[in-house]
Formats: sequence, C-alpha cells, structure tokens
Amino acid sequence: MLWSGWGDPAKAVTLPEPVVRLLRDALGVREPAHGPAAFEEVRLPVPALPQPVLAELEAVTGAKRVRTDDDARIRHTRGKSTPDLLLMRAGDASDAPDAVVLPGSHEQVLDVLRVCAAHRVAVVPFGGGTSVVGGLVASRTGFAGVVALDVRLLNRLVAVDAESMTAELQPGLRAPQAERLLAAHGLTLGHFPQSYEYATLGGFAAARSSGQASAGYGRFDDMVMGLTVATPSGTLSLGRAPKSAAGPDLRQLVLGSEGAFGVITSLRLRVRPVPGARAYEGWRFGSFAAGMAALRRLVQDDGPSPTVLRLSDETETMIGLARPDEIGAAGGSGCLVVAGYEGTEGHVARAREHAAAVLAEAGGEHLGPEPGEGWAKGRFGAPYLRDALLSHGATVETLETAGFWSDLPRLYEAVRGALTAALSDRTTPLVMCHVSHVYPTGASLYFTVATAQSGDPVAQWETAKRAANEAILRAGGTISHHHGVGRDHREAYAEEIGELGVEILRAVKRRLDPAGILNPGVLIP
Amino acid sequence: MLWSGWGDPAKAVTLPEPVVRLLRDALGVREPAHGPAAFEEVRLPVPALPQPVLAELEAVTGAKRVRTDDDARIRHTRGKSTPDLLLMRAGDASDAPDAVVLPGSHEQVLDVLRVCAAHRVAVVPFGGGTSVVGGLVASRTGFAGVVALDVRLLNRLVAVDAESMTAELQPGLRAPQAERLLAAHGLTLGHFPQSYEYATLGGFAAARSSGQASAGYGRFDDMVMGLTVATPSGTLSLGRAPKSAAGPDLRQLVLGSEGAFGVITSLRLRVRPVPGARAYEGWRFGSFAAGMAALRRLVQDDGPSPTVLRLSDETETMIGLARPDEIGAAGGSGCLVVAGYEGTEGHVARAREHAAAVLAEAGGEHLGPEPGEGWAKGRFGAPYLRDALLSHGATVETLETAGFWSDLPRLYEAVRGALTAALSDRTTPLVMCHVSHVYPTGASLYFTVATAQSGDPVAQWETAKRAANEAILRAGGTISHHHGVGRDHREAYAEEIGELGVEILRAVKRRLDPAGILNPGVLIP
Repeated sequence: MLWSGWGDPAKAVTLPEPVVRLLRDALGVREPAHGPAAFEEVRLPVPALPQPVLAELEAVTGAKRVRTDDDARIRHTRGKSTPDLLLMRAGDASDAPDAVVLPGSHEQVLDVLRVCAAHRVAVVPFGGGTSVVGGLVASRTGFAGVVALDVRLLNRLVAVDAESMTAELQPGLRAPQAERLLAAHGLTLGHFPQSYEYATLGGFAAARSSGQASAGYGRFDDMVMGLTVATPSGTLSLGRAPKSAAGPDLRQLVLGSEGAFGVITSLRLRVRPVPGARAYEGWRFGSFAAGMAALRRLVQDDGPSPTVLRLSDETETMIGLARPDEIGAAGGSGCLVVAGYEGTEGHVARAREHAAAVLAEAGGEHLGPEPGEGWAKGRFGAPYLRDALLSHGATVETLETAGFWSDLPRLYEAVRGALTAALSDRTTPLVMCHVSHVYPTGASLYFTVATAQSGDPVAQWETAKRAANEAILRAGGTISHHHGVGRDHREAYAEEIGELGVEILRAVKRRLDPAGILNPGVLIP
Repeated sequence: MLWSGWGDPAKAVTLPEPVVRLLRDALGVREPAHGPAAFEEVRLPVPALPQPVLAELEAVTGAKRVRTDDDARIRHTRGKSTPDLLLMRAGDASDAPDAVVLPGSHEQVLDVLRVCAAHRVAVVPFGGGTSVVGGLVASRTGFAGVVALDVRLLNRLVAVDAESMTAELQPGLRAPQAERLLAAHGLTLGHFPQSYEYATLGGFAAARSSGQASAGYGRFDDMVMGLTVATPSGTLSLGRAPKSAAGPDLRQLVLGSEGAFGVITSLRLRVRPVPGARAYEGWRFGSFAAGMAALRRLVQDDGPSPTVLRLSDETETMIGLARPDEIGAAGGSGCLVVAGYEGTEGHVARAREHAAAVLAEAGGEHLGPEPGEGWAKGRFGAPYLRDALLSHGATVETLETAGFWSDLPRLYEAVRGALTAALSDRTTPLVMCHVSHVYPTGASLYFTVATAQSGDPVAQWETAKRAANEAILRAGGTISHHHGVGRDHREAYAEEIGELGVEILRAVKRRLDPAGILNPGVLIP
C-alpha cells in the first residue's frame, strides 16, 4: 500500500485530458506548487515508549514483532481519508504510533492489552489501515505512548462448516486473501466494499462495513454469526446460533465498536457458494427522484432482488463517476442505474427479468450490459483516482449517510446544499451523489465532492465536513451508513444517539477497558 | 384472558377420546383429585406499598389507573408457563404485584419510574402477560414493594409511513389490535407467534419474539427500525435509518432486555402489504434428518423462500401436534412439513413451485393443501389444549433452542434424551419436536413434552427443565430462540454469554437503572 495514498503504486492512474480540462475550467483547480513529500522527508515524532515497556511487549510476541522503525510507524499513521492523505503528502506523520506490535494469537492479544493497560499505553487496533473517518488516531493525552496493534498475523481460515454455510476466519485477513481461501472450498463472502483490496475482516466487523453487493449478500454485520473478542478484562465469545432470544444481542455491541471495547480475534461468518452466473447492466432514469422511486419499488416488492443496485444522481452520471476507469468519457444524461445479478443461472435469470419489468414500468430505459460491465471493471478504482486528483490540486473526498425512504429527498438536498455552500469560495464545487445500499425501509446516500484546493485544504475540508454533518443530523439521517464514526464523526454521533446513548457506551467501555487504553478518542466522546 | 390458564374461556377445548386414552394408557396419566382453585380461593399477599407511594403514583396517572384490587393483582401475577399455571390453579398468587399502574404516555412512564426509584419499588413492565420463562416475577428482596407497569393504555397506531413501509406503533397494542389498525391501511406486520391473540408489540420487542411466519416476514427484532425507551435515567431514542455504521447498534441492546433496562414506549416497525394470496400445504419426509436436510437446502439456495416452514419430528407427526384442533386424529407416519406461501399471486406461485422442486428432490412426498390448511386453522390452538391436558392430570410444557445446522442433530438428541431421562419416573414421557424457524446458517428446535403429573408437578418440571437447559448448553445451542430469558433461563443464559457478557449487562443496567428497580431478578443474574 502506498504510504501517502491508496493502493499499489503500480496501479496509479493518469487523469485523462477531459478531466484535467474540467478541473481547470469548471473548478478553477491549479496544480500545486509543491508535489508530495518524499518518504525520507516525512517528519515523525520521537518514539515515546520506555524501553522496559518495549521489552515486555517483545516478551509477549517475540522481538521481531515489535517494530519501532520509521517504515512501520509511517505505514501505521492514520487511515485513508483525504485529510489523512493531505497530511501525509505534506510530510506530517505527527500521529504515528510509537511502536507497531504484531501478535500472533488471541492469547498474545490479551497479553499485549495487559502490558499496555499496566503501563497506560494507548492501543490502536489496526487491520487494513483503510479508515476514512479518523478511526486510527488515538488521543495521546495522559498516555505513556501509543501502540498500533496490527492483526495481520491473525490471517488463517480456521474452519469451514459447509453444512451450516459458515466459516471461521481470523480478523487480519485482507478481503482478497479471505476470498482466495474460501474459493478453494467453492465459497465466497460476497463482501466487496471500495476498500476491498486492502481492508481486513476484523475492520469490516469493527466498523460495520457494507459492500457494493449488499443488496444481494447483505452488510458485513449481517454476515457475522459469531465473534471472539480480546478485551483488557478478558475474552468474550458470542454467537451460538444465527439468531437468539437470549437477551440483548451482544454481537451487535461489538460490531461497530471500532476497537474501543476490544480486539476481534476470530469471526464466524456466513458464506455462500461462489456464484455460477453474473450479469451487470445499466438503466437510465430521467431524474434522481424517478430512479429512487424505481429502486424503492424493486426492494419493497416480493420479487427476487438484484445483487448490486447503484443509482447515480444527475451530476455523478454526467461526470461518469460510476466508471472511474473511464471517467470523463462514459458519462451521460439523466441518472444511471447499475444493476448486478449473481447466483445460480436460474436466480440470475429470474432476478434480471423481475428487475427489468419493475425498472421499465418505473420509466427506466435499458442501456444493455456495457455500463454495468464498465462499472464492474472499475469498481475498486475510485481511490486511485483520488490520488491523481489530489496531485492535480483538487480537494476530493466522499461522505455518506442513510435514512428512511421518506426522508431521503430532504436529506439529499440538505447535504448537497451544505457542501455546495461550504465550498463555494471561488468556484462552485462538484457535488455528486449515489444510492448504493438499499433496504425495504430506506437507503444510503453516498456523496463525492471535488473542488479546487485552497491554501489549507485540510481546514477547507474540515469546514465542509462540519457543514455536512450538521445537515445530516438536522435532516434526520444517520451520521454514517458504512464508514463508521472514528474521530471525525464522534461529536455528531453523540448527538445522534443522545447523551444517554453515549453514557451506555461509556459504561460498557469502563467495564471492558477500565484503563481506557483502547483507541482513546475514537467513537466515544 | 383466563386468569389461571390461556385465552378466552369460551374457547376452552375438550380433549378428544383418543387423546384421553393415550394419556391414560401410554403415559399413565390420572385425573387429579382436585380441580383448579376458584378465583375466590386464590391466596394473595397483603399489599405492601405504603399509602404515600400509592398517592404519588396516583398523582402521575390519576387515581383510577393505580389498581390494588384483587382482580387486577391476580391478573398480573406471573406469566403463562406451565409452572405459572400450576401455581395459579393451586390458588397460589404469592408473586402478585402490590399494585398495577397504567400510565397513559411516555412522560407518565418516566414519572412512574421516578417515583418507584425514589421509594425503591420494583417495577415489572407488563404487556400481554404471556411470558413463559418467568419474565414477570420480580425479586422482592430489598424492595418496598412491586408494581406491575401495564402498558395497555399505550395502544395507538401513531403514524404510517407508506413510502418507507414503516409504522410507528405503541407497545401496549396486542397483536390482533395492531393488525386491525394496520389492515385499514392495507398493511401487516406478519408476526404470528403462538401467543398472538394476547401478546403485545412491546413484549415482542423486549423478548425478541419470533412468529410462525418468520421464514417470510422475519423475526420481530428484524422488524424494529426505531425505538423510544423510558428509563429511570431518561429517554433513549434510537433508529434514524434501517441500518447504520454509527457505532454499536443500541437498538439491539434494548431488544431482548426484557424490561431490565427500561420500558419501550414507542416502536417504528417495518410493515408489508397485506398479502393478496396465501397457500399452505403439507409434505411428508421419511425421517426428521431427511426433513431437516430438505429445509436446509430450501433456505440456503437462492430461490424464493416459503413464508412458513415447520417440520415435525416422528413423534410429533404421529401425535398430530401440528394441528391442535384435530390432535390425535390427524397424525401420520414419517415427518410432516407444513409449508406456507404468502404475498403477491406471482410470488406465491414462484415460491411454491420452487419449494416443490427442492422438497421433492430431497425425497419429500407432497400431501396437498389439507395438512397445511389444518395447521393454519389450529395455529393458535395449542395453549388452549394445554389447559385441558393440565386438567386431565398431564404435565405438559414446551421449550426451545436454536443452533447452527451442523449442531442440530446433536442438540436434538441431547435435549430429547435429557427430557426423557428426567421424566421417566413411572412411564416414558412423550417428547415431541419441531423446527419452525429457519435461517441459512441454522434453525430452531421446539420441544413439547407431556407426562403424567407427579405429586408436585412444579418440582417435576423444574427438574426436567434443568436437565434440558444443561443439555442445550453442553450441545452448543442457545438457551432460547424466541421465548427469552426471564428468571427460568437466567443461570443458563449467564453461562451462555460468560461472566464478561453478564458484566456488560450489569454495567448498562447500573447506568440506566441505578436503583435497580426494573424487573429485578429477571434476565441479569
């Protein structure tokens, strides 16, 4: 993973000429005077951890698995939000952990937590490092230091239960690794978020990820049947049945806890057969409202559901953002729907036929497979595109929310309005939106924003983000549908669940993590 | 509701002659010397609440809504488990609350909790009174008295959101009332547990109910999109979107909390169109194992799912328990599957055709609509049957669990074996089982037991229940799939979630209910 950006540096993209023109002419984007800092120029704080603490950690994991070198520290600094990347590109690694610890077992995780609690060292559970909400930046105040607890060595497929269609997997598996291991058994998770190439299973669970195929495979939290969690107060083992009436569902308290309660060390996940058939296609609607109504009908009736459903608004359709590989070339008028169908041949045929009937009746125009296949080809490409845009002098970032269907038009207008107003200093920003996760009772809204970088793009985005958060809360949406809370949504989250909700989290945190070492400053205000 | 049994006394059933013979000849059941106590003979404790506390409660709700008469107290004593009924039939109302309070609004619930916390009065949130796990018997130790907080006046359909397909409903609505109110809008919840005629929406949520049509409509907890909860520490309002990544799902902490954290005062529930078509039918399999394999295939493939799926084991099929109205007459050999399909005409046709293909290929014999329609006709009849059986001198009770598919054969044998061993003093008991809630990764097992009453049938069942609980835990099942925890499963539940799990609940409880007045002794050990 590129330390200052996204993904495999070999896959870096060059912006096509029409996009460069658009940035320059419509947004007033100018290439910055300075390129990003070189790796050697990055400024790191002096490591704070006393030698005896390091020695105790080494006694747990072995000396090689406690790393204090610059490379390890830089690569565990923050996540992959645009502000994160802007800081790294400016050579600022002031949030770097003092050490990176790589435990190899559940017991070692317990022991690392024990050592850190004893010495009041903050612990940042670290999976793929792909948080876009500041979930990997612990507060240092009052702590002897900060350790990144990287779970990458917990990377095994422990067991497959083909009868129950579950698999026990370790949290440090990156999604493609997990898919390869499962594919050997003819199985898949079907979880394909934009962070797919780098994110880990533990992170998916801890931050309630939702993938591009959520309409068919469900959200990641839906897939979690069982969990083992290492906490400073001991081990939690949850999940003896798919569903239970034995009290509150404590799995749902761990899911979304973002490392603030413990470290997930094992997951029992629902799996499915690798689909025998796949088909993607495009549809066009006259307006975002018409497209939303069509998606709603499709997900509320009792016919078979598509596996992928994505509706771009007018601006996103015009720009062609659904196909990052061909951006600027593949756009169009109206609002593009990408629909995908995966499963058995029979299911794909039935679901496609049913969707065609509903979408056509709702006023959709069938565009054939090409836009769908274009989307599928470029589905993990957007983060690469962001790096190129940042280099060209654009501020580009995403944010998302969800709400009930009847709230969505208001929510859409409120967030779009807030972002536009906050970023219209010189030129009008490009604010694009799509719906990509649908439920019978509501859906998500995912916004992508591009504007010309100001002199201080971190502060520029902070202002816009604050305005968007306020708009989301006022319009009744949730502060995050699938990115999580981290530090960036912490205050808005507190408003969403109310003071008593926050107090519940604090009470749980005090019991599981009495020293408060786990991801301090993340999730819980 | 009959104070000493189930339901409308006018619907009391007479046991058919073949059943009476079976009880006598196979189980050695003898009619008891004494019939149940008359209402006037019931022994109630002297009401303990000091007059000033009653006056404060009356100031909140109005004098008429604080009841201390025998009738109200007896009708709020315990729930509807067999031990509950046996005690009531013996004239023992020693667990009666000192008063019954009927708040009329969320604010009144908050005020009742405030008064009770100030005077250390235990509060039992009371909906339909249909708990079968001792969920309505609060511990009195250390309390000035016990109040049943009956939510029956919170019985409005507050709002329908036809676009989002949700409705806001109050917790005191009994299921048939709720269905009538929704039907006026062409909507249904589709939640039909055996307690349907009397249970309330608040109780469904607080105890994680699951209905007979769960394969199609989902469990009740799946339907809960939003919640308002009155706690001694204030109000919780949860649920701004169908799904969210904003932290742990706190809705899932209230669901299943059985009144120990607060009183649910409002619910935003997913609703569906009243189905235009319905079809029920029967299938026969050679063995329980073959039937389970067929159900598993049906719920794991990607075809449309039936709305109702119920598989009886050999003994239950022989007795004909799936059709309580015709028990003893409608039995048969092998294992009966009842499959039901509800929805649009198209969906019913597709789902039925798909199920027929899968079930036939798995070795099922199609029995036509008659067994399915018989099941549908008698679907709420079993609790009436129990009263008649108790009167004849049988001990009859149910219990249930759930597990992953690969655990079910072991779980089935373990529980059946434990019940049989515990109740074989004189004759072998009748132990019947069915699967009635299926998921891609597992299913529930629901046991019905009948045996001859011993001299102390409450103790007799307690022994059997303890043996079943131990068997469930050892075989890896959950202690309850849809009955809840109450007092009866409390110790087993603690073992299921572990000491740290219990500590989490205690921490939440301390924060929301610092005086510990809410349903003390229920759920949390």
